[in-house]
Amino acid sequence: MRQGFPEVVFCQGKTIDQVVAIMERLIEYNHNILATRATPEMYTAVAAVIPDAQFHEQARLIVVERQPVVVDPDRIIVVMTAGTSDIPVAEEAAITAEIMGNKVRRVYDVGVAGIHRLLAQRQILEEANVLIVVAGMEGALASVVGGMVAKPVIAVPTSVGYGANFGGLAALLAMLNSCAAGVAVVNIDNGFGAGRLASIINHMR
Amino acid sequence: MRQGFPEVVFCQGKTIDQVVAIMERLIEYNHNILATRATPEMYTAVAAVIPDAQFHEQARLIVVERQPVVVDPDRIIVVMTAGTSDIPVAEEAAITAEIMGNKVRRVYDVGVAGIHRLLAQRQILEEANVLIVVAGMEGALASVVGGMVAKPVIAVPTSVGYGANFGGLAALLAMLNSCAAGVAVVNIDNGFGAGRLASIINHMR
Amino acid sequence: MRQGFPEVVFCQGKTIDQVVAIMERLIEYNHNILATRATPEMYTAVAAVIPDAQFHEQARLIVVERQPVVVDPDRIIVVMTAGTSDIPVAEEAAITAEIMGNKVRRVYDVGVAGIHRLLAQRQILEEANVLIVVAGMEGALASVVGGMVAKPVIAVPTSVGYGANFGGLAALLAMLNSCAAGVAVVNIDNGFGAGRLASIINHMR
Amino acid sequence: MRQGFPEVVFCQGKTIDQVVAIMERLIEYNHNILATRATPEMYTAVAAVIPDAQFHEQARLIVVERQPVVVDPDRIIVVMTAGTSDIPVAEEAAITAEIMGNKVRRVYDVGVAGIHRLLAQRQILEEANVLIVVAGMEGALASVVGGMVAKPVIAVPTSVGYGANFGGLAALLAMLNSCAAGVAVVNIDNGFGAGRLASIINHMR
Amino acid sequence: MRQGFPEVVFCQGKTIDQVVAIMERLIEYNHNILATRATPEMYTAVAAVIPDAQFHEQARLIVVERQPVVVDPDRIIVVMTAGTSDIPVAEEAAITAEIMGNKVRRVYDVGVAGIHRLLAQRQILEEANVLIVVAGMEGALASVVGGMVAKPVIAVPTSVGYGANFGGLAALLAMLNSCAAGVAVVNIDNGFGAGRLASIINHMR
Amino acid sequence: MRQGFPEVVFCQGKTIDQVVAIMERLIEYNHNILATRATPEMYTAVAAVIPDAQFHEQARLIVVERQPVVVDPDRIIVVMTAGTSDIPVAEEAAITAEIMGNKVRRVYDVGVAGIHRLLAQRQILEEANVLIVVAGMEGALASVVGGMVAKPVIAVPTSVGYGANFGGLAALLAMLNSCAAGVAVVNIDNGFGAGRLASIINHMR
Amino acid sequence: MRQGFPEVVFCQGKTIDQVVAIMERLIEYNHNILATRATPEMYTAVAAVIPDAQFHEQARLIVVERQPVVVDPDRIIVVMTAGTSDIPVAEEAAITAEIMGNKVRRVYDVGVAGIHRLLAQRQILEEANVLIVVAGMEGALASVVGGMVAKPVIAVPTSVGYGANFGGLAALLAMLNSCAAGVAVVNIDNGFGAGRLASIINHMR
Amino acid sequence: MRQGFPEVVFCQGKTIDQVVAIMERLIEYNHNILATRATPEMYTAVAAVIPDAQFHEQARLIVVERQPVVVDPDRIIVVMTAGTSDIPVAEEAAITAEIMGNKVRRVYDVGVAGIHRLLAQRQILEEANVLIVVAGMEGALASVVGGMVAKPVIAVPTSVGYGANFGGLAALLAMLNSCAAGVAVVNIDNGFGAGRLASIINHMR
Ligand SMILES: Nc1ncnc2c1ncn2[C@@H]1O[C@H](COP(=O)(O)O)[C@@H](O)[C@H]1O
Ligand SMILES: Nc1ncnc2c1ncn2[C@@H]1O[C@H](COP(=O)(O)O)[C@@H](O)[C@H]1O
Ligand SMILES: Nc1ncnc2c1ncn2[C@@H]1O[C@H](COP(=O)(O)O)[C@@H](O)[C@H]1O
Ligand SMILES: Nc1ncnc2c1ncn2[C@@H]1O[C@H](COP(=O)(O)O)[C@@H](O)[C@H]1O
Ligand SMILES: [Mg+2]
Ligand SMILES: [Mg+2]
Ligand SMILES: [Mg+2]
Ligand SMILES: [Mg+2]
Ligand SMILES: [Mg+2]
Ligand SMILES: [Mg+2]
Ligand SMILES: [Mg+2]
Ligand SMILES: [Mg+2]
Repeated sequence: MRQGFPEVVFCQGKTIDQVVAIMERLIEYNHNILATRATPEMYTAVAAVIPDAQFHEQARLIVVERQPVVVDPDRIIVVMTAGTSDIPVAEEAAITAEIMGNKVRRVYDVGVAGIHRLLAQRQILEEANVLIVVAGMEGALASVVGGMVAKPVIAVPTSVGYGANFGGLAALLAMLNSCAAGVAVVNIDNGFGAGRLASIINHMR
Repeated sequence: MRQGFPEVVFCQGKTIDQVVAIMERLIEYNHNILATRATPEMYTAVAAVIPDAQFHEQARLIVVERQPVVVDPDRIIVVMTAGTSDIPVAEEAAITAEIMGNKVRRVYDVGVAGIHRLLAQRQILEEANVLIVVAGMEGALASVVGGMVAKPVIAVPTSVGYGANFGGLAALLAMLNSCAAGVAVVNIDNGFGAGRLASIINHMR
Repeated sequence: MRQGFPEVVFCQGKTIDQVVAIMERLIEYNHNILATRATPEMYTAVAAVIPDAQFHEQARLIVVERQPVVVDPDRIIVVMTAGTSDIPVAEEAAITAEIMGNKVRRVYDVGVAGIHRLLAQRQILEEANVLIVVAGMEGALASVVGGMVAKPVIAVPTSVGYGANFGGLAALLAMLNSCAAGVAVVNIDNGFGAGRLASIINHMR
Repeated sequence: MRQGFPEVVFCQGKTIDQVVAIMERLIEYNHNILATRATPEMYTAVAAVIPDAQFHEQARLIVVERQPVVVDPDRIIVVMTAGTSDIPVAEEAAITAEIMGNKVRRVYDVGVAGIHRLLAQRQILEEANVLIVVAGMEGALASVVGGMVAKPVIAVPTSVGYGANFGGLAALLAMLNSCAAGVAVVNIDNGFGAGRLASIINHMR
Repeated sequence: MRQGFPEVVFCQGKTIDQVVAIMERLIEYNHNILATRATPEMYTAVAAVIPDAQFHEQARLIVVERQPVVVDPDRIIVVMTAGTSDIPVAEEAAITAEIMGNKVRRVYDVGVAGIHRLLAQRQILEEANVLIVVAGMEGALASVVGGMVAKPVIAVPTSVGYGANFGGLAALLAMLNSCAAGVAVVNIDNGFGAGRLASIINHMR
Repeated sequence: MRQGFPEVVFCQGKTIDQVVAIMERLIEYNHNILATRATPEMYTAVAAVIPDAQFHEQARLIVVERQPVVVDPDRIIVVMTAGTSDIPVAEEAAITAEIMGNKVRRVYDVGVAGIHRLLAQRQILEEANVLIVVAGMEGALASVVGGMVAKPVIAVPTSVGYGANFGGLAALLAMLNSCAAGVAVVNIDNGFGAGRLASIINHMR
Repeated sequence: MRQGFPEVVFCQGKTIDQVVAIMERLIEYNHNILATRATPEMYTAVAAVIPDAQFHEQARLIVVERQPVVVDPDRIIVVMTAGTSDIPVAEEAAITAEIMGNKVRRVYDVGVAGIHRLLAQRQILEEANVLIVVAGMEGALASVVGGMVAKPVIAVPTSVGYGANFGGLAALLAMLNSCAAGVAVVNIDNGFGAGRLASIINHMR
Repeated sequence: MRQGFPEVVFCQGKTIDQVVAIMERLIEYNHNILATRATPEMYTAVAAVIPDAQFHEQARLIVVERQPVVVDPDRIIVVMTAGTSDIPVAEEAAITAEIMGNKVRRVYDVGVAGIHRLLAQRQILEEANVLIVVAGMEGALASVVGGMVAKPVIAVPTSVGYGANFGGLAALLAMLNSCAAGVAVVNIDNGFGAGRLASIINHMR
């Protein structure tokens, strides 16, 4: 456990038994634990042996909080989405950041096809210390936000969309080619990775 | 020659001799002629036999105007670019539209990474009848413009950029996945096709 | 609500509850509503609270018509398909255009592998104001139609086919590379986007 | 040497010396020889030692005819192109077929964006025994021709085009997805392969 | 109905009702009918109204034979597969060719990783008039066979395999790049197209 | 000019005249200027009018320093490369960070195929505040470094390599899929973007 | 049966009946048999007729051992994985190697994002004769291991991961671009192929 | 220097000065040196300071031999190519293996489209200890050879070909999907890597 951060378990590709076994082993040290990409069935099995485990279904996260989470209320991570379908990935990022000790503000459904929605949130962008931008389809939100702030922007392409989005490839390429400086990109649908990196940056003094 | 439009010659992949021969044949009918993707060498050879041929080097267009071009000054096609490197493709679109009898206004270098530049041009967007949006890299301008107007937006991805832009693929996919309605896309770097379609739409009564 | 067009809801990636909540909120203003990519389950839930909601199952559209839809019978949008499997996407385009106040004519199953079927419909092409061409597999219909008319052609590639169609990529690339001028392309299977753009163009005066 | 066909040398990737050496060795048997993808420099070097070698520059073919080529005038291979830029590949196919003992008719520049050009050639299509269709960009000609005849159609995609043609990929995928039966495809720009296969079929009794 | 061939229905993407309706309409003319990519459910529904319809489950074909099928026993189409998993596609090709009036010989499971199996069948290759080679994975069989015969070889890549076969792409590219002349390729898993083209060639006189 | 950072000019795709004109305009305000992707010819032309412009040839950067650059010596950005061929991109990142007011340490040629080289630099990794990891080929260095530190790691894939690196795609995908948390990725060869983002993070207090 | 190796059956794409029939035929010769990619249902059917057949569910292998398997305990094949999700593929490799007469040691979950885990196993790497490295996501383990030993390393990319791993493509490309010499790659998820090749190498004298 | 192997320098992407500097430093220890992907200009510069350096132009290798190379004449590495255009890559593999102390036999131009050429070399295949198979286009040779021997086969795809070979991708995918066991693959055109791995295997006792 580095930096007061929780232990992290990546559940995808593991059996329910494997997840339970790993979490039982980790909980002995009374650490905080974050399990990502967990199914409801995994949660049920984990809760049977760790009753204080909590489940965030939309975000597919199991959280066990045994150590106090200290938060600096003046350093805000803003998590934004372009659409409502991007919210599950955004929640994965937001809750990851919260359990790692960050104050998070959510600004959802401000995609660039209605730019006024974004402009209406300018004040919040000013208050942010780090920004996470979650967007599928054409992924343009990252570029617009990146151009509005001189702060670190972590872009998360999502697989939301159809046809020529090719499972998130369209948004991924758009974000990598952003002409706004200060933008870096994580894997498609990787809310966890974005939350983790944002937390690391947000804890820098 | 349909709709008073010029005859069009696509020069790429043709020899200089072929281009000259085709244009000599067409000019006998005293039509207007538009030759796209022309090299300076092609122009020199054409000008030797058709002295009133004009060359737009950046746009790679040869234009011969033998018939009067009638323009309705109240129906404006706005051609926009995200960056300065997109201008050659935009000029191909703009000059194509002009020779086909349209009034064109150019709004260049208003990419979304500096959204204030675009917002400052709002008035012109209102006055437009049809819009052509030319952008490389992440191609996000089409989505933002498409969301600001309820008018036809023709998006032209360009091959401007490097690395994961994959020769214009990034902008192409972004534009195809635009969540703004009213946007349709032509081939990468196809300024001509955009100008032509914009002209057809702009002549509808 | 711009231009008398309905409010539009994109249902894919939303829960049934989200769709119902959004539609209940919109209906308070007595707007017309169009919900795309809706499942039968979504419709059942919506109809429970908005009894006059109609469902077009093949097109996956829920339509609520509260305001009169005014149609100019002299301005026709022609919607064409290459095969019968392309019809659901074509219906999405056609019904979208209709609820937005357009007269639509359907010309289905006129793929280029039997060119006489298309040639037999020449008269209708003449009468069209705007054309929507829906085709999967090799997507060649857009080029042939685009060459027959000097009118706006909106091409919709579909994911119909197998093997090296790669989910609609073959038709998409073919349409983007059309050597017929006047053709622009929307996303694979995006009947809605085509209908919307056709409607915008068809309302131009 | 099978079936009275010539020996074939693929020059690409070989040095001039290697090409000369191979051809000198082959000519000892007084065979007919066909060298494909030859450069003018290769031809100059070959002609120095085999003076009766002929060069077809556009088709990049060197031909040495030492044995009489017998042709059945009633069995015609028709070679078609969509555009003029496709002619070099078509010539590679046509000359290959000719040196292999076939009567060839060329029908060039009949792309589908001007379908009347193709329909005007219907008579020739009837007379064909085998057809080779050469097309770049959207490659649609193969489907239309394939639907007009119940004869073998060999489709050759070319790399002619730009942007999202991705070096011939667009035409290749279109041709593979042709809904016209009776069409098979060879490699991008592979005029030789098409000519060879057409010749084999045309010699069947 | 051209050339005494059956009417063909492509069932994929059609509803059961659509398939039944089309077949009922066609059978009125007492034609032979071939329905490809049919499911068992489709067959059951068809057989209820056309009792003499036959089903080839592995090949996913429904066949109705109302007209006598005339076969020339001296002109053989050989259908080969590399592995046993390629057999369904091969059967689609073979039965298609048979209903179109061809004598077919099957040579299955002779993939090149055991070249002796192929060499043992040399005699049959000699007797063939046209060959269809069906192979997934690395698709190498087409090249080896193409080199052994101077006859038309129609290569059918299959989606058999996993990982970097990318749904048949590996075999498709291999076959397109075959250095054996006389080979042409149809779409991945398109046994029907191969059988149809082979039949057309096999009927040439 | 935000945050005391220089004005930035992206030279690629611009003519020499355009670059000179832009820099002459910017220098009037006596700002610091950074011009990226500059050619030697561009530099010569710029130096003729701005004599104090400096050129970093390997990094393709022109730098004009008119305002003092203030650096906090305790906050170090470490720039690492896997190989020597990655150094030009790394220098672009390092010099970008320096002109933006950061202390930079270079740790070059520590690719993972000789893991001892990296382990020998552990001390420097400890002292870093932010890390930039530049790697081509398999791009594995980002994952190993990301696992060794709980600090922000900005990964820059390079186009160094050949064959199946597909212009940097291999390294890009590897870095996006890194199982080390705390890693984010910029475009292939985008040293500037990495330097800029690292600087933003390094200035956070 | 070559080299005392078992007969191998590839079950994927075969029906249960086909698998049973093949295994019944092979068992008559009293050979050892290895059936790969077998489902539990296939095993149940096989066990009904070959009661001594064993099933390794995770590895999807059916093994029948009728001949003694001779093992040289001094020649060790080490099978490594980056994560726990890669274990099924690793087991396919390990058990394949074992039934082919090799001593195998498993070193699992030593991915490079925690390089100490790998360094702690250095001793085992020294003792290895041949190494199999199984990794998904960024596939970096192969490069690090390849740099630590001068022994043959067979890299197996897995489809473990999500988003931009594109079904194992990311790991595959990374492994092919490994700058560590001595590494060769098999197909995505092809544990069998790796075990087979390792066994062949391990038996060389 | 491990295992008596030479020091290796990868010249691509390095300046001439860098190559000379590295080689001068290495030669002080009197090691054997192998420099890959070297240009003639690099060799000229190296030979000026290391006069006994040798150049293999086709293979792009500079070799300096200061230590005796010991060879076991009974353990043969066979290097094969499908065509003559593959020879430069094959020579890179062969000379790499030789300088590393192996006896090499070359079997060139035995591609599968003329299977008799390969069968005629059966005797040599028997004598091989390890095989390297170099092939472009459809890459089928690896599968055929892999099926003929129960020995390690290292497959090297080359970028030889055109059109849908996509820079070697076709051969790469074919080789990865080989159904012959015992085959592993290195990067496109990576003759060095194949030679190195073959040498490691060939030295196993
Ligand atoms: N959703 C996720 N996406 C990517 N990486 C993850 C995710 N969740 C956890 N990880 C990483 O995976 C590691 C745990 O993997 P494991 O040991 O297989 O449970 C953690 O240290 C994280 O860095
Ligand atoms: N399996 C198949 N793959 C590709 N094309 C097919 C297939 N089956 C039928 N077709 C073609 O599709 C046409 C019939 O399509 P449809 O009118 O939609 O039933 C026929 O004329 C055939 O050329
Ligand atoms: N090498 C580079 N790669 C990506 N973006 C860049 C690069 N250099 C500059 N930029 C961005 O491009 C903008 C300037 O573009 P321009 O106005 O065309 O000169 C700057 O604000 C940077 O954000
Ligand atoms: N999992 C696997 N992946 C790739 N090839 C395999 C696999 N299992 C078996 N094979 C190969 O497939 C051949 C058997 O195929 P089959 O005759 O279809 O059962 C064997 O000789 C193996 O070389
Ligand atoms: Mg910014
Ligand atoms: Mg709009
Ligand atoms: Mg038109
Ligand atoms: Mg036909
Ligand atoms: Mg042949
Ligand atoms: Mg870390
Ligand atoms: Mg090694
Ligand atoms: Mg073998």
